[in-house]
Amino acid sequence: MYRSHNCGELRINDLTKQVELSGWIQKIRDKGFIMWVDLRDRYGITQLIFDQERTPADVIELAKTLGREFVINIKGHVIERASKNSLIDTGEIEVLVTDLNILNTSSTPPFTIEDESDGGEELRMKYRYLDIRRNPVKNNLILRHEITQEVRKYLSDNSFIEIETPYLIKSTPEGARDFVVPSRMNPGQFYALPQSPQTFKQLLMVAGMDKYFQIVKCFRDEDLRADRQPEFTQIDCEMAFVDQDEILTTFENLVKHIFKAVKKINLDKFPVMTYDDAIQKFGTDKPDLRYDMTFVELNDVTQHKDFNVFNIAELVVGFVIKGGNSFTRKDIDKYTEWVKRPQIGAGGLAYMRIQDDGSFKSSVDKFYDQSDLKSWSEKSGGNKGDILFILSGDKEKVRTQLGALRVHVADELNLKDPEEFKPLWVVDFPLLHWDEETKTYHAMHHPFTSPKTDQIDMIDSDPSAVRADAYDLVLNGNEIGGGSIRIHDKKIQQKMFDCLGFTKEEADKQFGFLMNAFEYGAPPHGGIAFGLDRLVAIMGGNEIIRDFIAFPKNNSGRDIMIDSPSTISEEQLKEINLRLKSK
Amino acid sequence: MYRSHNCGELRINDLTKQVELSGWIQKIRDKGFIMWVDLRDRYGITQLIFDQERTPADVIELAKTLGREFVINIKGHVIERASKNSLIDTGEIEVLVTDLNILNTSSTPPFTIEDESDGGEELRMKYRYLDIRRNPVKNNLILRHEITQEVRKYLSDNSFIEIETPYLIKSTPEGARDFVVPSRMNPGQFYALPQSPQTFKQLLMVAGMDKYFQIVKCFRDEDLRADRQPEFTQIDCEMAFVDQDEILTTFENLVKHIFKAVKKINLDKFPVMTYDDAIQKFGTDKPDLRYDMTFVELNDVTQHKDFNVFNIAELVVGFVIKGGNSFTRKDIDKYTEWVKRPQIGAGGLAYMRIQDDGSFKSSVDKFYDQSDLKSWSEKSGGNKGDILFILSGDKEKVRTQLGALRVHVADELNLKDPEEFKPLWVVDFPLLHWDEETKTYHAMHHPFTSPKTDQIDMIDSDPSAVRADAYDLVLNGNEIGGGSIRIHDKKIQQKMFDCLGFTKEEADKQFGFLMNAFEYGAPPHGGIAFGLDRLVAIMGGNEIIRDFIAFPKNNSGRDIMIDSPSTISEEQLKEINLRLKSK
Repeated sequence: MYRSHNCGELRINDLTKQVELSGWIQKIRDKGFIMWVDLRDRYGITQLIFDQERTPADVIELAKTLGREFVINIKGHVIERASKNSLIDTGEIEVLVTDLNILNTSSTPPFTIEDESDGGEELRMKYRYLDIRRNPVKNNLILRHEITQEVRKYLSDNSFIEIETPYLIKSTPEGARDFVVPSRMNPGQFYALPQSPQTFKQLLMVAGMDKYFQIVKCFRDEDLRADRQPEFTQIDCEMAFVDQDEILTTFENLVKHIFKAVKKINLDKFPVMTYDDAIQKFGTDKPDLRYDMTFVELNDVTQHKDFNVFNIAELVVGFVIKGGNSFTRKDIDKYTEWVKRPQIGAGGLAYMRIQDDGSFKSSVDKFYDQSDLKSWSEKSGGNKGDILFILSGDKEKVRTQLGALRVHVADELNLKDPEEFKPLWVVDFPLLHWDEETKTYHAMHHPFTSPKTDQIDMIDSDPSAVRADAYDLVLNGNEIGGGSIRIHDKKIQQKMFDCLGFTKEEADKQFGFLMNAFEYGAPPHGGIAFGLDRLVAIMGGNEIIRDFIAFPKNNSGRDIMIDSPSTISEEQLKEINLRLKSK
Repeated sequence: MYRSHNCGELRINDLTKQVELSGWIQKIRDKGFIMWVDLRDRYGITQLIFDQERTPADVIELAKTLGREFVINIKGHVIERASKNSLIDTGEIEVLVTDLNILNTSSTPPFTIEDESDGGEELRMKYRYLDIRRNPVKNNLILRHEITQEVRKYLSDNSFIEIETPYLIKSTPEGARDFVVPSRMNPGQFYALPQSPQTFKQLLMVAGMDKYFQIVKCFRDEDLRADRQPEFTQIDCEMAFVDQDEILTTFENLVKHIFKAVKKINLDKFPVMTYDDAIQKFGTDKPDLRYDMTFVELNDVTQHKDFNVFNIAELVVGFVIKGGNSFTRKDIDKYTEWVKRPQIGAGGLAYMRIQDDGSFKSSVDKFYDQSDLKSWSEKSGGNKGDILFILSGDKEKVRTQLGALRVHVADELNLKDPEEFKPLWVVDFPLLHWDEETKTYHAMHHPFTSPKTDQIDMIDSDPSAVRADAYDLVLNGNEIGGGSIRIHDKKIQQKMFDCLGFTKEEADKQFGFLMNAFEYGAPPHGGIAFGLDRLVAIMGGNEIIRDFIAFPKNNSGRDIMIDSPSTISEEQLKEINLRLKSK
């Protein structure tokens, strides 16, 4: 027995109780004859008092040797504090120590174990076990736990069965790069780690399991972008005998349940928007609806004058920023530079101020008069005091550029309230997208996604136009989930593989087992997968997923705490029948 | 919408309801003018009736084309059956079909989708998605789901936090073989898949998470024995500020909770036995307590006569089989041959019958008289009608041999009731065991296990005698869980590494991060890990773990359904900077 209570538990009505506590030393205040120690564990902080008049001399003497992060065990009794601390739950009491036992000492930590640490990213990662002692990180992990338990509860209560699918599977070079695992027992052969349990969950539907879920690690060997991890966690779900509406309803209710249970937030019915609408209105398939700035297409009110930039453009498009007339010339210059950066690649930024007296002032006053500008203002719904930002050019590019600008403006104007949550279903994704580089079609979602049933014939005649029964759940501008109704007809699946340029041999080698399964009574089915890391991060009010993973890797895929990956011995290499290429 | 009800749901009080069902065709009985179809889904079977007088002609015509495992969708209304079936929940009703929609056809399955299938192991694995349609396999997966949800519920309710630890970690060649994963971004370097999250869960204790759990896949690249899988699932748990008793209580209650919640069985308090006792009494550290046959040491009553086999033996030991006097000469010969098999390696089997008249008859009557035999009988507690089996030889070997014989006798006599559950804690394991081959000490549990605190000095003077704060939970003769109090003192951990023959460099390279962590206030901690596959199998009344895994691998580590492992492309190999050795 190391404790009768934890460090977050004692209250004023525990006064006089004999207690035993264990934990870490957060802080020491030594006044000579009296010494206070803040003792910390996962549950909270309790103040200990060592008092020359009431604590045995040898205990005081030992207490003088204590340091930050020492692990101690004490006995004592609960007394009322002279000066209370209303900021912590235990703030009305303290424990007068009678026995002290040092369970472990500690070197001085490389950074402070406080809510705001002085440790840099690298240092905090190397000593992640100390970083986790800090409340923000600890609370993130507890939030993650709560969310996953509620996900399981909701899905189990709705007849979903959690089924583990294998981690050692088969490499399917299509899509992102696999991590592979050499097989010692089958020399020259490899397993692959799953990028998702996609084919297995479909097989479980063929197997009649009806409703499946799993919270599962997935792996992608990609060149890591700032906030990607080579291993990440999905809430993976699949249902048989359902159409898209039933799936949306089921998982909308899941997300509502989590928000209600974990954050005490009641979400309204989620809006639904088509992919085409999202692109047209927000320049992205994951619009952030916490702020407006909906796109307005201005071709018909801009292309009748001598301004060639607009006249030759496929699309002239803009959005209104409420109160944006307060932007200084310098502000606007900064936005202009921002859109001209090579990452965005716009030629420039046109704008129109709607001034407080109702007159207009634009960057293109040379070409347009007040009545032109008035028509822009009317079309875009701008009001006095607003500003209209306008980009022009090739339709697809300019929408992407303006979409990025929209997000940037929201960042600059602090429009992203981390405690506001705006979910959105985006539906009717294209089935395929054309890859200019390889001159082939790729699956927009994945090769198992069902085209709209009335558009199957168009796969041959007009592939780009075919829409899929595919949907994403977007939350605050992030895709947190995506899924589709799957193909369950072998012939259509074959058609898709053909269309994606698989030879029959390739399709057979990689997905033969699934095609075989479709021979034996595959039911209609569909599903969704949520990115748990991202979902937790957003619910935690912070979009850096690393902060919500106990032991994340850095941007080079390294775990700098354990120093991995690392070399292995010649003997290990030999056993798995491999040589390093450089040797 | 594909259904208003599932196939296990309709009852007599649903009579006359209009319903829509979807599922697979289990069975067709075609009487010409009337046709019955058993429609199956995960939830049950509902009988459909197609009746010339009441079902539209075109529907009847389409129904004539149906076959086994076709996927159909029907509409109709619920009527009362003429001949009821009390064996199924829906047995009082049937659905008179008015609309029929074939959702998918099926080829004839390669084996029957019945509780007792005609499919062999290999075929069932290849078509696992059909095997899972069978009730026994389906129910195993549902049982597994129920158990894991209850594990999570109990642990969450007891303040444990589920935390995901990484899958791409670092190779530690000590112990079993790792699966390794080449890193493309770090050429020549490898991750390893975890054999367990051991070091991470200890770091989480250093991090102050206090109580951790995870249901997690682990990986071991071993030459597979009959019932091992290269990937397996653990319920992995760790607690800080606890002693062994608190851990045993916590996890005994976990197991009781699962049995109560899932199987409605109240388990009694688990007995506790020391490792030494288990070995001495049952010849194994995982005794099956569903049957008795406790060992009796007979040296003092056997070594006073001229029977040299016993006289030179370090140990003469036996057990009584209730009613075993009914064994025929042939039965006994078979047991004798069994113990002489090279896998067991005994020289022979001595026995003594206690006959119904109270006289004794033994295989060594030449050397021992009735009064000798009477003393054996008294010592072993045998009664009239029993038989005493005796082996002799080197103490360690003979106990193992007799332990194996005890299990074999129980098998032969059908003493293993799969619905009887006898848990047992085995405690006080040796810290180290001496490996004759390598002439080194190995950690009996793992290198992080704490020796009994009063025996730390013996690590130098008498290593083999040191006992550890290590414990196993045994259920029906299987180790279902094992754990220990861990070392939290850097100096003792260093001593252990020394003792295990790690050089300082090796210890640093592999476990430096843990040793570093121990610098910063490591709390006393300990934990346990349960083998989920085994636990579920035992609770399912069947000890073949493969039957409780959705997509298991065979004994060569192959998934024969997806045909993995398999070769990968030259390009993939090149990207990860590897060559096959044979090239």
